[in-house]
Formats: sequence, structure tokens, C-alpha cells
Amino acid sequence: MHSVAVVPRTFPRFEIAPLDRALSADLQHKIDQKTKPLGALGRLETLALQLGLIQRSLSPKLVNPYVLVCAGDHGSAKAGVSAFPQDVTWQMVENFLAGGAAINVFARQAGMRRGVAYAGGAHDFGARDGLVDAKVGAGGTANYLDGAAMSAAECATAMHHGARLVREFTAAGCNVLAFGEMGIGNTAAASLLTHCITGLPLADCVGRGTGLDDAGLERKRALLAQALSIWPERPPISHLPLTEGEDGRGSNEFRPAGGDALRVLARFGGFEIAMLAGAMLAAAEARMTLLIDGFIVTSALLVAQQVSPAVLDYCVFAHCSNEAGHRRQLDWLQAQPLLDMGLRLGEGTGAALALPLLNAACAFMNEMASFESAGVSEKV
Amino acid sequence: MHSVAVVPRTFPRFEIAPLDRALSADLQHKIDQKTKPLGALGRLETLALQLGLIQRSLSPKLVNPYVLVCAGDHGSAKAGVSAFPQDVTWQMVENFLAGGAAINVFARQAGMRRGVAYAGGAHDFGARDGLVDAKVGAGGTANYLDGAAMSAAECATAMHHGARLVREFTAAGCNVLAFGEMGIGNTAAASLLTHCITGLPLADCVGRGTGLDDAGLERKRALLAQALSIWPERPPISHLPLTEGEDGRGSNEFRPAGGDALRVLARFGGFEIAMLAGAMLAAAEARMTLLIDGFIVTSALLVAQQVSPAVLDYCVFAHCSNEAGHRRQLDWLQAQPLLDMGLRLGEGTGAALALPLLNAACAFMNEMASFESAGVSEKV
Repeated sequence: MHSVAVVPRTFPRFEIAPLDRALSADLQHKIDQKTKPLGALGRLETLALQLGLIQRSLSPKLVNPYVLVCAGDHGSAKAGVSAFPQDVTWQMVENFLAGGAAINVFARQAGMRRGVAYAGGAHDFGARDGLVDAKVGAGGTANYLDGAAMSAAECATAMHHGARLVREFTAAGCNVLAFGEMGIGNTAAASLLTHCITGLPLADCVGRGTGLDDAGLERKRALLAQALSIWPERPPISHLPLTEGEDGRGSNEFRPAGGDALRVLARFGGFEIAMLAGAMLAAAEARMTLLIDGFIVTSALLVAQQVSPAVLDYCVFAHCSNEAGHRRQLDWLQAQPLLDMGLRLGEGTGAALALPLLNAACAFMNEMASFESAGVSEKV
Repeated sequence: MHSVAVVPRTFPRFEIAPLDRALSADLQHKIDQKTKPLGALGRLETLALQLGLIQRSLSPKLVNPYVLVCAGDHGSAKAGVSAFPQDVTWQMVENFLAGGAAINVFARQAGMRRGVAYAGGAHDFGARDGLVDAKVGAGGTANYLDGAAMSAAECATAMHHGARLVREFTAAGCNVLAFGEMGIGNTAAASLLTHCITGLPLADCVGRGTGLDDAGLERKRALLAQALSIWPERPPISHLPLTEGEDGRGSNEFRPAGGDALRVLARFGGFEIAMLAGAMLAAAEARMTLLIDGFIVTSALLVAQQVSPAVLDYCVFAHCSNEAGHRRQLDWLQAQPLLDMGLRLGEGTGAALALPLLNAACAFMNEMASFESAGVSEKV
């Protein structure tokens, strides 16, 4: 186990360049000359175009893919927002370290390396191979039913931890990074973040998480409404959907603050969610491809895109989760997920399952013949 | 190149055992004990259950996956049903042999071996490594605007060829087989088969194929309506959707004939479609997992399931194609495709892209820890 060094307690800053679309025409031409009808590879073609733009290359390649799994404890867990006991957070981290969790299995299959980080919680793992100690504070977050989940300084520290880890992956040559998480209670936190940042009705943002029954869901909704009601200083975030840029996804004008979103993150977020937001911004700054998993990871992205909307240019949305609210997040972001398999496990599992599709998008760009090279007649 | 031996000119017979569901409860128990919330792996869980039932094992494994790509010429191609010239059929076979087509790229990525078969056409390839000579007759099929595309004997021969090839794959230890095709004009043939077998309106079954414009689509529809009108002996196939079995997919009562579907196949089909239908039936007989690709492959399956409905128990539907009609076929079969990426290339590309998901379903069954083995607390 190695620790992330102590960092200044101010929020990190990132310089994320919006994608330069100058290469679009050349990429599209290369795609169209492959031995197939125009557009016949559907979503793989738009994916290949995006990867080419991210990498500024007509021959994009994915190198040393990583999945970063951040875990953390939530003070709200003991208030009854989850169907599982809080101890499952550290128990599942042990499972990650032992190689027995779903993300271990799928990451192995996809040839991904794993980074597992403990962002904060009640457990003491001691020094352990394969675990990054990124603990913020002595325990988990505070219960947002009593006040803020974390201080601004703690929130900033967690974001710095995420950013620093990403710089280690970059140094290892990684250019595609998937995000995953574990934290009993974190769908509840993600629901609050989503509601506050997007303005979607709270009820639409709250789901069953690990498997609440109807009564449990009702209780979770009531607790989250209460958490909102005891925070009169809640900042007014612009709830307008992103304005349409010419790429149809979002304008990239600089939004210097994201300050209100960061206040929401500190109020309701988990340490692992803050760590993910920092990691995403650092990954986009490093021009990596970001592979976005499910509901909780997308809530971290909602924060990150308030800090710098250009982060979205680097995101591939792996799947649509079965957790209520994820589809709404994706719609709000005008994002098209690759898979829709009814998954709702988190850990980065959907992202790992989608990686082969990104590999396929690169492979057809690099290995498939053109009409000319293969001597195949074109359309009459 | 090796040739498929001459076979008797009667339709092959197959003994396909409907899945025995006795193992369902044990499989479901194993799935539910994995370290994840109940049902959290969504579609992967139903897939794992199906693979376990097919292989009669709590630890299903995919061994030596193959993709069988069957190519053939259609007499109708010269009547203007396609946007590409007929020569593209053999040119693309050359592309398959040279390794430059999309299916080559995706099969390599997925670790699949390829079998490329020429089921009939105008081209003479000579003896070639990697190409199975399964030619039926001297040229392609006849033009169904003038009469039957093939004789009953030719149709039976093509089905035998498919079945024999599958037996070679079985001998090589293969237990999962994907199906692909190439044949200028074959979406038109598939439209006619789909209309006749399912009873769906012809217009709903006809799409743009390799990229017809509006006028071309109109012309294709008119030509196919004409092809139907000049066949007054068209058999009345039961158009009822399959009756619901307890597995929600279809009853497995023996339908001895499928004779009417075979008459439709001979009237409108391509040699490659007949070959695929025979291959599917043989693969199900051998208890392989069948990985079904797009619109044309599914039209072959529509024929096969009329011969023996139990073939459907062995099918995994890889994706929903963007070719109009595929969604309708899938709905009629009550099939849930794994991917929906707007593909419309054929060749087995969608099937190859889906194989990693099947591998993931097996891997979580075989490699993921249980609550007990990992020491993780269960739901409270």
C-alpha cells in the first residue's frame, strides 16, 4: 500500500482542452473508405471518430487500460438508506484485493489493470499490496442528516488524491481509464448530487440501490428529502441542460467556478465520489479516454462537468444502469451509452464490459482494408 | 480449400433436445450467492443460466469459438434489389481470405476462428486455403422474379453442407458457433422469408440493405411484391407467434415438417441462407451455443425454428441490427438481443462483438467469490 502525499487544502485546478475537431473530416473519410456500406458499423463509427479526436490520431489505440475503483464509507449508511450493512464497504474492498469481485473478473477478461483506493472510512486495512491509502479524515463522511458530509478541505483533499493517482496511471502509459466505486449508501449520495445539479425531481433520482424493497425505497426518499430540507443555504445551480455546441453535446465555454457544485459535493458526497471527480478532471486534462460506469460514477461526472464542461468531450458512456436515475442522468448529459444490460452493480463492471467495444472501434480503424486496398467495388 | 462431400438430395433430419430445466434452481442459487446484490448483473445472469442449461453444467465454459461465414450469389441481384454490384460477393470473400474485412478484425479480437464457405455463385476461386467449397449448382441462385431461386434438391444440399461443416467444428472441440453471411441481394431474400414465415407485412420486412436511397427502397419493395405475386402456390404457414412455454420463449412440441418453410426457403432463399439454416440445426443438435447475428442470419433461423422449434433454446441473440425488419424478427421470436449499436454490416460482426459478453457470463460463474467464501455480509 502506498499513500497519496499530503496536499494543500484548496481545490485543484485543471486545464482541459476542448476537442479540436480539425481532424474530423479526415477521420470520417478513413472510416468511409473501409470495406463496408457507409455507416454500417453504427455506434462503433462515432466511437472511432471520438477516440481519434481525443488522441489526435487517424489510428487511435488504447494503451494500458486501467480501472480505478474508489471506496468509501458514508455517514448516512447507518440512518437506513441502504439494504446492506456499512461493513460491506470494507469487506468488498477485501474482496477486490483477493480478486473475487465482479470487477476483478471482468477487468481480467478485458485485460485491464486495477487501482483500488480507500478514500475514507472506519476500517483500518494496514499496509496492503494493491490498495492505495487515500483516506480522508479518520472515519467515513459525516451523516448529511446532521450537517455537511465533509468539509471543503476534506472534499478538496479527496479530489487531489484522485488527480494524483491518475498522474501515476499516466506515467505508466495508460491512455484509457475506467471509473468504479464501492460504498454502502452511495446511491443515496448520488441521488442528492444529481437532483441538486440537474434539477431533476428528487423522486426521479432515487432508486433501490443494492435492493431496497418498497418500504425501504419510501424511507430512503423521505430521508433524502429531509437531508435537503435541513440545508437552507443550498446554492442555486443553473439547472438548464447544457447548451448545444456544434458537436451536439455541449458548449465548452470556461466555467471557472463549479463552486456551487463543489459545495453540493461536500454537503452530500462520499469521499470516493469526490476522489472520482478529481480523477476524471485530471484524466481529461491528460487527454485520456474516460470510460464512465453507472449511476454513482455519473454523479461524480455531473460535478466534474460543472467544474469544466470540456471533460465531457473525453467521456465514453459504457452502459445504462438499471438503477433508477441513471437513464435520467444520461439524458440530461445527452449521452449515448454503449450497453444496456440491466446491470446495477457498480465497481466499474459496466465499464469493464464495454472496453472490448472500444478496442473493436480502434481495431477496425487500424486493421480493416479499404475498398481500394481490397479491390472491392463501391456502391453503384 | 476442401470440398464438402456429395450428399443425398433429401432434406437432412435433426434430433434437437429441448433444454432440460432441472438444473435451473441450482444455477440460480449459484448466481445468487455471488458477492453482488440479487440480480445486479442483469442480462448477464440470464445468459449465464442459459449457458449452464445448454452445457448441463454449473460451470459453463466457451471452448474454441468459431464464426461460420457463408457467402452466395443471388439471381435477384441483377434485377436491382441492391445498391452494390453482384461482384462484391466474391470480392468480399477475397477480403475475408486476406483478413481485411470487419469480421476478420472482430473475430481476431474476440479470439474466434473463422470458417468461410462459398455456398454458390458465379465465381471460380480455385483451390484456396481457408475457403470451404460448398458450391451448390454452377452459378448463384435463379432469380425469384422468374421462378424458384433453387430446387428442393439444391436447397437440401446446401443445408447438408452447413450441417457437415458444423460437425467438423464439433470435432475441433468448438462449443459456441457464431453465424455470418455475405451475399449481394440477401437482405431482399431475407425480407421475403421473414414475411412468408412470420406473416408480418412485407413493407415492415424490407429495408435499405447496403444503403439504398428512397427510390431504390421503393423499387426493392415493388420487386419483392412482384416476386410474391407470381407464386400463387405459396404455402399457408401458421403465422401465429410461438405459443408461450414456461420459459417464456416458446413451446417445444415437435413440428415434424417445417416443410412449408423449406418450400419458402427454396423459392426465395440464397444458398448461403439455406446453408446457415442447416448449420444452425446441426449446431443445436450438437448442444452448441448458437450466436445469432443480424437480419439475414435471423431469417435463416426463422426457417430453422419451423423445422425444429427447440433450436431456439440454444440461441443467444447478439444484437439488434439497424436493418429494418430485424427488430420485428426479434420481437416475433420474443428474443432479447445483447447489443443495440446500430450495426448493419452482416458477416457475423455483431455476433463477434457480443462474444466477450458471453465470456463474461461464464467468467463470473466460474471466478467470482460467494458471500461465504469472501466473508461478505448479506443483505440485512
